[in-house]
Amino acid sequence: MEVCTVGGFKEVGKNMTAVKVGEDVFIFDMGLYIPGIVELQEEDLLTYTQRFKSKNQHKSGKSGNYQKPHRQPQYTEERLREFGAIPDDRVLDKLGWREKVRAVFISHAHLDHVGGVPYLIKRYPNVPVFATPFTMKVLETIAEDEKISLNNPKKIVQPNSVHIVKGKSGTYKAEFIHTTHSTIDCVFVALHTPEGIFFYALDLKFDNHPTMGAPPNYKKFKEISRKNVKLLILDALYSGTEKKPGSETIARHLIEEAIAKVRYSKKAIFVTTFSSHIERLNSIVEFGKKTGREIVFIGRSLYKYVNAAMAVKKCPFKKHVKLLKYRKQINSFLRKVEKQRDKYLIVCTGHQAEENSILDRIVKGETTFRFREGDNLIFSSSIIPAPINIAARDKMDKKLKRIGVRLQKDVHVHGHGSREDMRDLIRLLKPKHIIPAHGTLQQETPLIEIASEFGYKFGETSHLTSNGKVLKF
Amino acid sequence: MEVCTVGGFKEVGKNMTAVKVGEDVFIFDMGLYIPGIVELQEEDLLTYTQRFKSKNQHKSGKSGNYQKPHRQPQYTEERLREFGAIPDDRVLDKLGWREKVRAVFISHAHLDHVGGVPYLIKRYPNVPVFATPFTMKVLETIAEDEKISLNNPKKIVQPNSVHIVKGKSGTYKAEFIHTTHSTIDCVFVALHTPEGIFFYALDLKFDNHPTMGAPPNYKKFKEISRKNVKLLILDALYSGTEKKPGSETIARHLIEEAIAKVRYSKKAIFVTTFSSHIERLNSIVEFGKKTGREIVFIGRSLYKYVNAAMAVKKCPFKKHVKLLKYRKQINSFLRKVEKQRDKYLIVCTGHQAEENSILDRIVKGETTFRFREGDNLIFSSSIIPAPINIAARDKMDKKLKRIGVRLQKDVHVHGHGSREDMRDLIRLLKPKHIIPAHGTLQQETPLIEIASEFGYKFGETSHLTSNGKVLKF
Amino acid sequence: MEVCTVGGFKEVGKNMTAVKVGEDVFIFDMGLYIPGIVELQEEDLLTYTQRFKSKNQHKSGKSGNYQKPHRQPQYTEERLREFGAIPDDRVLDKLGWREKVRAVFISHAHLDHVGGVPYLIKRYPNVPVFATPFTMKVLETIAEDEKISLNNPKKIVQPNSVHIVKGKSGTYKAEFIHTTHSTIDCVFVALHTPEGIFFYALDLKFDNHPTMGAPPNYKKFKEISRKNVKLLILDALYSGTEKKPGSETIARHLIEEAIAKVRYSKKAIFVTTFSSHIERLNSIVEFGKKTGREIVFIGRSLYKYVNAAMAVKKCPFKKHVKLLKYRKQINSFLRKVEKQRDKYLIVCTGHQAEENSILDRIVKGETTFRFREGDNLIFSSSIIPAPINIAARDKMDKKLKRIGVRLQKDVHVHGHGSREDMRDLIRLLKPKHIIPAHGTLQQETPLIEIASEFGYKFGETSHLTSNGKVLKF
Amino acid sequence: MEVCTVGGFKEVGKNMTAVKVGEDVFIFDMGLYIPGIVELQEEDLLTYTQRFKSKNQHKSGKSGNYQKPHRQPQYTEERLREFGAIPDDRVLDKLGWREKVRAVFISHAHLDHVGGVPYLIKRYPNVPVFATPFTMKVLETIAEDEKISLNNPKKIVQPNSVHIVKGKSGTYKAEFIHTTHSTIDCVFVALHTPEGIFFYALDLKFDNHPTMGAPPNYKKFKEISRKNVKLLILDALYSGTEKKPGSETIARHLIEEAIAKVRYSKKAIFVTTFSSHIERLNSIVEFGKKTGREIVFIGRSLYKYVNAAMAVKKCPFKKHVKLLKYRKQINSFLRKVEKQRDKYLIVCTGHQAEENSILDRIVKGETTFRFREGDNLIFSSSIIPAPINIAARDKMDKKLKRIGVRLQKDVHVHGHGSREDMRDLIRLLKPKHIIPAHGTLQQETPLIEIASEFGYKFGETSHLTSNGKVLKF
Repeated sequence: MEVCTVGGFKEVGKNMTAVKVGEDVFIFDMGLYIPGIVELQEEDLLTYTQRFKSKNQHKSGKSGNYQKPHRQPQYTEERLREFGAIPDDRVLDKLGWREKVRAVFISHAHLDHVGGVPYLIKRYPNVPVFATPFTMKVLETIAEDEKISLNNPKKIVQPNSVHIVKGKSGTYKAEFIHTTHSTIDCVFVALHTPEGIFFYALDLKFDNHPTMGAPPNYKKFKEISRKNVKLLILDALYSGTEKKPGSETIARHLIEEAIAKVRYSKKAIFVTTFSSHIERLNSIVEFGKKTGREIVFIGRSLYKYVNAAMAVKKCPFKKHVKLLKYRKQINSFLRKVEKQRDKYLIVCTGHQAEENSILDRIVKGETTFRFREGDNLIFSSSIIPAPINIAARDKMDKKLKRIGVRLQKDVHVHGHGSREDMRDLIRLLKPKHIIPAHGTLQQETPLIEIASEFGYKFGETSHLTSNGKVLKF
Repeated sequence: MEVCTVGGFKEVGKNMTAVKVGEDVFIFDMGLYIPGIVELQEEDLLTYTQRFKSKNQHKSGKSGNYQKPHRQPQYTEERLREFGAIPDDRVLDKLGWREKVRAVFISHAHLDHVGGVPYLIKRYPNVPVFATPFTMKVLETIAEDEKISLNNPKKIVQPNSVHIVKGKSGTYKAEFIHTTHSTIDCVFVALHTPEGIFFYALDLKFDNHPTMGAPPNYKKFKEISRKNVKLLILDALYSGTEKKPGSETIARHLIEEAIAKVRYSKKAIFVTTFSSHIERLNSIVEFGKKTGREIVFIGRSLYKYVNAAMAVKKCPFKKHVKLLKYRKQINSFLRKVEKQRDKYLIVCTGHQAEENSILDRIVKGETTFRFREGDNLIFSSSIIPAPINIAARDKMDKKLKRIGVRLQKDVHVHGHGSREDMRDLIRLLKPKHIIPAHGTLQQETPLIEIASEFGYKFGETSHLTSNGKVLKF
Repeated sequence: MEVCTVGGFKEVGKNMTAVKVGEDVFIFDMGLYIPGIVELQEEDLLTYTQRFKSKNQHKSGKSGNYQKPHRQPQYTEERLREFGAIPDDRVLDKLGWREKVRAVFISHAHLDHVGGVPYLIKRYPNVPVFATPFTMKVLETIAEDEKISLNNPKKIVQPNSVHIVKGKSGTYKAEFIHTTHSTIDCVFVALHTPEGIFFYALDLKFDNHPTMGAPPNYKKFKEISRKNVKLLILDALYSGTEKKPGSETIARHLIEEAIAKVRYSKKAIFVTTFSSHIERLNSIVEFGKKTGREIVFIGRSLYKYVNAAMAVKKCPFKKHVKLLKYRKQINSFLRKVEKQRDKYLIVCTGHQAEENSILDRIVKGETTFRFREGDNLIFSSSIIPAPINIAARDKMDKKLKRIGVRLQKDVHVHGHGSREDMRDLIRLLKPKHIIPAHGTLQQETPLIEIASEFGYKFGETSHLTSNGKVLKF
Repeated sequence: MEVCTVGGFKEVGKNMTAVKVGEDVFIFDMGLYIPGIVELQEEDLLTYTQRFKSKNQHKSGKSGNYQKPHRQPQYTEERLREFGAIPDDRVLDKLGWREKVRAVFISHAHLDHVGGVPYLIKRYPNVPVFATPFTMKVLETIAEDEKISLNNPKKIVQPNSVHIVKGKSGTYKAEFIHTTHSTIDCVFVALHTPEGIFFYALDLKFDNHPTMGAPPNYKKFKEISRKNVKLLILDALYSGTEKKPGSETIARHLIEEAIAKVRYSKKAIFVTTFSSHIERLNSIVEFGKKTGREIVFIGRSLYKYVNAAMAVKKCPFKKHVKLLKYRKQINSFLRKVEKQRDKYLIVCTGHQAEENSILDRIVKGETTFRFREGDNLIFSSSIIPAPINIAARDKMDKKLKRIGVRLQKDVHVHGHGSREDMRDLIRLLKPKHIIPAHGTLQQETPLIEIASEFGYKFGETSHLTSNGKVLKF
């Protein structure tokens, strides 16, 4: 068995791994690297601004012929590669593996796992893409938005199902095993090969008390361990953290508290959270209803994910919310909110103060609504600790505080497992080899230490690798 | 109204405040400063060690005449003052207030609030001490342990009750209002005086979903605000923290998870937590029972608090646990544990790796039990962030890990409220003046900032003070 | 003696203190609050952008009638007040002090001390402004840039000189005592009044081995202590830090090292540092000369400060540098650098990655020069730890690293004294009272603790205050 | 070429690497792991204490037959192995390398490099040990103290000298190249083999302005790069730190400042620093002399190192200090200091508040001297950031402050190079392969990133390894 760790082993993002057994290659995930996308967009914006500036300086008189770039440009494979925004799968060409790819498996619907498919999949014609219903729907939505047609066969698989993939060197059984994380329809993929099982465990967060769906399928993990698990690729992002994040039940409880606090307010109530976090949104709606207000979701990415969940009938709060997508709709709705602050509970984008999110635009005065003293804003999120987010939120929060908006922050538990979860999975699966994934070398390293508690030896049975490397087992 | 902030305004500990209205003075809390006690003990130990060393060096031959100090020496008022372990209430003599004290009110059973009473109360002969049943019982236990007789009248008061105190300049109504914190029977004390209400809010943690008893009596807070709240003394310990600690319901949930993880283990199971935290202990017992093991509590301070809770009939798990106090009993019990590891779930002292706690003694090999690979230890606590604790736990944890003990840490939510709780109380009470308490100047300062959000002006309606100062209102 | 702490007691910036003795009032410093300015500018930019956007959206066709705002708008007193960018000296009107102001003393040339003068001084007609030559020159430059004429009498004073100010209630001696900080011509001001000496010690950094000029005038401090120092207002910004910042001799040494490392490079060499730090610039020039390259200073604020230093004949490196101010000049010069990278050593603005600084513009591709692999950039500065700076530098540094620019960072010692310096001054002056200044309450608080080491008692002889408060002594 | 990374690749300490070329093996360093030693000592102490306690409890009446353990027990190889205090060189037996060892090279005199030799060298009979004069002298001193006789041939080599070692598969040239660190006589070892140069660069700190001796031999590094440097083993301890530690010239300057501050004090003056840091001690003596006081060094480890430096004639301050070793001498001397505080400047051990160091014993009252108010203590060190040190110093510092001792801390620059130094060496040597050493995986990882700036690829030309692993090149 050979493994090529294509992407996500040097950064948080653009996850992609390929496995070769005999003449057959399998790909796991094709994600995006968001900071690369952001940079690409900024460069575009800069080019645009400079073009404008130079026009202005030269007093060319008319800006009529100026072409404002599409808000969401169609990214080309080339530009995405230039900015390192997609995994560099050209290594598979060099290895002669590309032609041998028999299937692409997508673990879940987050962009760092599924977001690269629209741009890369055409390089693997006719190779089927396997994903759970929600994940597949999100994939289709992204492709549509980008006006890319996906021509590969789409195999929609249920969690806890098994599928057969025929290869040249044999027939493979792919098991999609339900796990919990911070969106729905997440699976670990266990590929049964003649040389043993390849187990792909990204992303990891074990929640024994989810508020939607079942806990992770521990029984299956144990069952599999009785066969020969040759290699475990494991989400090591929080391997440096001993403290276990709470269950989503705890987040639900925090949401309950936060909304209870503002229930009798006559002022506006806004909540912001991760758009793909259907379970969280469900809790927000559940307690939001108790305020007696109409619940309205606004923002593009919220629309994208919630709509996908509805489409696959995994959106329990479907009937209780209104979903607004287009800027016009949103502006006209916000005008109503401005006047009748106590009629709506708004769930919106912008928890990281992202440029052009709903919150960002409101705070900058670019919408028809303005926050006033006593309005309420609940952040069901924590700040992703990159300097850009810290600075953006710092600025936003200061403005909101000055206005007198009542903020509740960190009404949240995060979605990646800690050391304890990793220990559990290792204990259950008993793999021969372990490779930490989903981060920089520095972030992956602590998993080597954890593995050593179980007797894994660095360089023998536990391994650090990097993007584009091949390891043989 | 004059206020003398006697202790706890320069450190975390030895809380004590006195209020004077006309010719009548009232005292709120008389706590200990634990680091002072520790230092005093160390000094004693040192003296003892040196005496031994010098004997040994001089080869005096016999150690028979050597007097080992009592494990728990009787502290004298003088020595406690020398080491700053009790509030310096001699300031009341200087002010001429001592003779005018009409009542002492104790807020709750933690040592930094009640622990100084045995050593100081004799300076206030005949002055009644008011406390809730549990607090009073703990006070009596401490006094007994120290062989001090408490001769002052003891007034046992129920939470949410009102008592009249007669003074020289009038008659005062003392309201004991139920609040939540991290032990039971906690109250805020509102003293109704002719000049307005003095409100003593130490310690603070608002829990709307406690697992035992009711949430804080918000209704009463609101009611009181309609009268004239002249001054609020407020626990500001965590005023620098925006993040709200979770409800005890969350801790209960974490306990459930932690115990579920080890339920089927055949090895030893130990849990350690704060001895006074009856609510937490209740959750531990609740889920501990599911392991089918016998639950045994060992350690002196556990004995002290749990026994007090039993005595006042506030220990719901009374029938489900065995309580061991004496070293002999404990050693004989631990011998059994050594042999039948899967028969007991032991709750013990030592979460901070305190010298001479049960865990400390086990790890140092001073008991009849030794941890082995696979044994389980749950810390339902977090490390109190002082260098001494960090170092002690670091050392203990390393040893335990080397042995292969399976640790679960931080199965805990902490017991002091955050900024949000302080905002809530200020909003509800609308006091004229605010004084932050329960910490160093540095720790109290952020409350001034919070108060300023509500329009309080530093130096006019919000005030920083220090030990031994007097402020007039 | 009454003291009104007008500004700089709630933030880092807009320092201003007023002292009243009898019928005479004296003002110390009138600074700007830079974050307020930044916000004001952003608001302006936003307005401009939105205007543009809306035009564009409405397809008004022509942008010809659009008025781009002045790069550096003329700030009005009103707008500056609105954004809290200047001290709120209207409190002096309320107190009836404004008419009684006899003199304004400026401590040094940093904007948070002198920058508010142009906007506020007209409220104090005929009141003389006292400043050292460099400080006065900088003040004049700012006023000119803003097209404000300063009509008040200007009193240029030498460090270590004494001046008499006549008041209604007496005649006052103002002593301007040389101290070290991070620009030149800094003084502490000691105002001798009938009621004792008022000592204004902002900003503080004691350097016993400066590379230009003399160490602080310790002798004078001691001498003064023999008279009655009633009150010391003391820069407490770093009172939380035990570690002493190194002397400027150390910075000089670090500069030597950093430049030695790149001396034989054939690529571009850029250095960036604080524009007002003449002493540092002198070291950069001293070792820069050894590279044999021509040394060119570019950037507006560098021009402003260095030009002022030249004007007052306190610029030892005058003959060794070329100073470019205008964008055209700079662009044409950078075009030459692009071609002859090894001919110039460029000192430029932008160490905090400030918007529109030279570095910012180069990195964004807005100039005629682009960094290439192997070019050298020395940051003789550390990042001012505000989220906005951290994020801006993080982004800039990442870009530079990706290009392959060789960065040397933190070639710097900072310019505010630590606890040790404060202890020294207290020891030397022995003032009766101490008020910490130059920060938030949180930042000032540690000085109270330091003072307590010397026996000062909080609330009696050491005092915390806030903007706009009055204290009597 | 095969490399076995025996020790120091999983921890900071017990450095040891073996290289095999053909039939010849070479060892580089044999260090101790200090925390292992500490633990061993504690265990011993515990055993002793328990024995005492049990005696006491059983009232055996006499302590006369009790055997107090030797203060400094003779450690056996077995016990040292048990506590992981020496590198596990038994791997060389397994590899069949032990018999092939031709030479042992010691880089410098720190215990984590030379301290294991006395316990391990007998396993390599007749194998010569190469070390610089100071390093060899320190080695001999340790062995003497431990009463171990070193029977291997000792080869004393000068920095910047070359020596020939004959092997079975060829003749090797070992070059000992002068480098700077935080003790004297430090070398990098370049072993010229038929397969290329093996370059051992532990420990690293490049100081271009040392206060004793020459800067690192950069010329030689460059020269060597022209040959084929196959492998570089590099001290990566501070590879996570961008900030360059200052030159020792800066430390000298800080010492000057610190001593100047106390020069006219009539109270005691103590200075404490790293005992092996001859260069630092030299600066302390240089400026200490200006106080006119007699300079006395006290403490065992100071004696050990300074005496060794004197023996090899590398102690420039030889004539200016008195060196006390024995407890009796020290006590009698301290009695004099107690009475004549202004006559002596004492340099002593205990900067980390180590148990039984001079400072520790003074502060605990175990000597004939006690600190009093106004006494001066200079820490020419920083706290090594392990919890045990932090806690010990926290406690010591608090006690000293309470007494009123005037502390100056962090009068220090540290002795391991930063990223910049590593970049320099890589740039100069241009090795084919790089292995980070001297730390945990976590600490070594950042060097992989630095190497990647130069094009090294992880897993191909840059390598992470662990204790006991073999890599082939």
